[in-house]
Amino acid sequence: MSTLLLTGFEPFDGETLNPSWEAVRQLDGELLDGCRIVAVQLPCVFGKALQALCQALARHQPSLVLAVGQAGGRAELSLERVAINLDDARIPDNAGAQPIDVPVIAGAPAAYFSTLPLKAMVAALRENAIPASVSHSAGTYVCNHVFFGLMHAASQLPGLRRAGFLHIPYLPQQAAAHASGTPSMALPQIVSGMRIALRTAIQTVHDVRLSGGTTH
Amino acid sequence: MSTLLLTGFEPFDGETLNPSWEAVRQLDGELLDGCRIVAVQLPCVFGKALQALCQALARHQPSLVLAVGQAGGRAELSLERVAINLDDARIPDNAGAQPIDVPVIAGAPAAYFSTLPLKAMVAALRENAIPASVSHSAGTYVCNHVFFGLMHAASQLPGLRRAGFLHIPYLPQQAAAHASGTPSMALPQIVSGMRIALRTAIQTVHDVRLSGGTTH
Amino acid sequence: MSTLLLTGFEPFDGETLNPSWEAVRQLDGELLDGCRIVAVQLPCVFGKALQALCQALARHQPSLVLAVGQAGGRAELSLERVAINLDDARIPDNAGAQPIDVPVIAGAPAAYFSTLPLKAMVAALRENAIPASVSHSAGTYVCNHVFFGLMHAASQLPGLRRAGFLHIPYLPQQAAAHASGTPSMALPQIVSGMRIALRTAIQTVHDVRLSGGTTH
Amino acid sequence: MSTLLLTGFEPFDGETLNPSWEAVRQLDGELLDGCRIVAVQLPCVFGKALQALCQALARHQPSLVLAVGQAGGRAELSLERVAINLDDARIPDNAGAQPIDVPVIAGAPAAYFSTLPLKAMVAALRENAIPASVSHSAGTYVCNHVFFGLMHAASQLPGLRRAGFLHIPYLPQQAAAHASGTPSMALPQIVSGMRIALRTAIQTVHDVRLSGGTTH
Repeated sequence: MSTLLLTGFEPFDGETLNPSWEAVRQLDGELLDGCRIVAVQLPCVFGKALQALCQALARHQPSLVLAVGQAGGRAELSLERVAINLDDARIPDNAGAQPIDVPVIAGAPAAYFSTLPLKAMVAALRENAIPASVSHSAGTYVCNHVFFGLMHAASQLPGLRRAGFLHIPYLPQQAAAHASGTPSMALPQIVSGMRIALRTAIQTVHDVRLSGGTTH
Repeated sequence: MSTLLLTGFEPFDGETLNPSWEAVRQLDGELLDGCRIVAVQLPCVFGKALQALCQALARHQPSLVLAVGQAGGRAELSLERVAINLDDARIPDNAGAQPIDVPVIAGAPAAYFSTLPLKAMVAALRENAIPASVSHSAGTYVCNHVFFGLMHAASQLPGLRRAGFLHIPYLPQQAAAHASGTPSMALPQIVSGMRIALRTAIQTVHDVRLSGGTTH
Repeated sequence: MSTLLLTGFEPFDGETLNPSWEAVRQLDGELLDGCRIVAVQLPCVFGKALQALCQALARHQPSLVLAVGQAGGRAELSLERVAINLDDARIPDNAGAQPIDVPVIAGAPAAYFSTLPLKAMVAALRENAIPASVSHSAGTYVCNHVFFGLMHAASQLPGLRRAGFLHIPYLPQQAAAHASGTPSMALPQIVSGMRIALRTAIQTVHDVRLSGGTTH
Repeated sequence: MSTLLLTGFEPFDGETLNPSWEAVRQLDGELLDGCRIVAVQLPCVFGKALQALCQALARHQPSLVLAVGQAGGRAELSLERVAINLDDARIPDNAGAQPIDVPVIAGAPAAYFSTLPLKAMVAALRENAIPASVSHSAGTYVCNHVFFGLMHAASQLPGLRRAGFLHIPYLPQQAAAHASGTPSMALPQIVSGMRIALRTAIQTVHDVRLSGGTTH
């Protein structure tokens, strides 16, 4: 049976939970279209997060990987299009490191594109009443770090057919503790959206041709 | 038994539903702290909305009224502080009228403040993981029109102890059809928030002293 | 000769300047359409700001008053429509006071509307390439405090034909020290916009009928 | 004498001017730190824009190139960090073409990083009172198309030591015609900021180590 690997992060930046882990842990062990879902938590630490990811790749030999991270302040599920070979930390990570302007992996390419069928996934989410869009920057913190490391590994693992990164909003309880106006998404909706996104990724051979770009 | 009147609006501005009506209809007939909830739908039409409200006030003789409306683009429950005596429609209402710079009620005061314990309500919502804040403008469309008419009526109805207005976000299915980045709130969360807000309004005698203001 | 009184505030909230004072001081002494402009600085202190305003009203006997304040985070000139009888300070004022949920003037009405021809002023500004709009909340801090006190005084001064409040953005040097993405407006443009707005206020007898409202 | 090439775009998306061309044309022919500035206008057309850029590179043999484009809705000068090998047009270009999910240059790398000293440039701009930041997405329209083509060409031109892309806000007259709240920047400030940025790029050998990243 094929394995789908989901990763979520431990809390960071003063939060007591991370919605990415709260969401993916709910899908751990579930069967989806004949595939088994495995959920793994990653530390919010440069370097160590990638080591944990690579161990999970070696152990579970997944055919599809969706790494998930918190994007506090965004209002919808956002599927990342491009991982860049750059660490530039605005705040220290959970081990106190704050790399600035260094590559994720020295000598690797400047960027990788997600190999998920992003347009089909966004279309399926919206049809199912879940706000979603394509994003063209995953930032320069541990999320992008893991996304880039994942895509670099995937470029060398023929069995890993598809991989990508999903940013999700704060949960309501997090937004309630932030400044007025901070958007959020309820956990059941995030989990439901992840099932829709994964099922679309499994079933779609060629991505659909729908505009998802931005003028800047 | 005391009656709590909730009002919601019919859809407007091209939407096929209005989250305010979807939410309040779920509470219709419910008992809350010994009070009976009655939900009434109002047309999104200047004048007629107020007539429907006044009929409901006469028929149900509520001790507390919470009028609810859609605030597309806001991310949280927002309790309105002040109703102003002004109609200035950005778009025509559902009957095609677009009043500009006319009073809601000629000869009435310039404004009324909500008589709900807003600070206690916001605090209770946040403690229960629901993003909420006080807002200082309900706009100048049919929402503010109803809010102003409600407060004007309440000023003349001794039995109506408390009244106010709640703006709520788009539902996720609405946001999914709008521009990327539009925030939303799930219906179960809105309904749960309305119960918390109403219970707090029933139980609070004197509002708490918490800052909820803005510098501009 | 008729006098136009402009007021600006001293710096607050950790800033070293206040764009409202930087702008109005440039117009001090200028003649505009046969009127003399007088600019006065107000302290950013509840109570004292109003005392200083009332002294200026008594001394200069203006026929028109435009009070101006900083609205950090707004991107355009915003002409305030309504002053509310409420102090609810998010941060302490320059004397350390932080009033919460008290009236500006006990026993006064809940609100006053600006008596400036706001729609004509916004139209003239936009025609002259200056971003501008009508705002329906001046907040609940010292700006609204002064705006409310001004309109209350104006209601008792027959010679003071028109009065209102203008919120202006940060200057570029302020925005450069705030978070990425903070909007600003250059000082020459603010000053030029104030001349256009004042001239329109002097020349307009009946305001134009243009939509300037919001749905919420 | 060394040549600095600046490019700006013709108007698009219904605008009657493009601030990027209005700004760079003011610097055409100017001497800066011993370098001569040449400004060239590019069509807002996929493919043709790159052809015009390559002709200008061949003709002027610049040692430094700064391509400039309009980012309507942004509030500050934003220096782009990464160009991606992707066209995904949200709206048709000025020739009516709307490429979706195709590479800018087939067979080229996924991305290139700007070779300008971005952190030093942002620091210099802020010290000189001009709001600025590093951006991690130039979008997927003609701006990114030109940015990517520029960096690809630069990778093969040893004499072109440094190249990058600057996104600038709407001018005030443009913002005045858009929705309320649209930010803008005055033209003299944009031009002054471009001089500061260029001078810093000429004088900086090694970029400074300052955080300019985002968590997402």
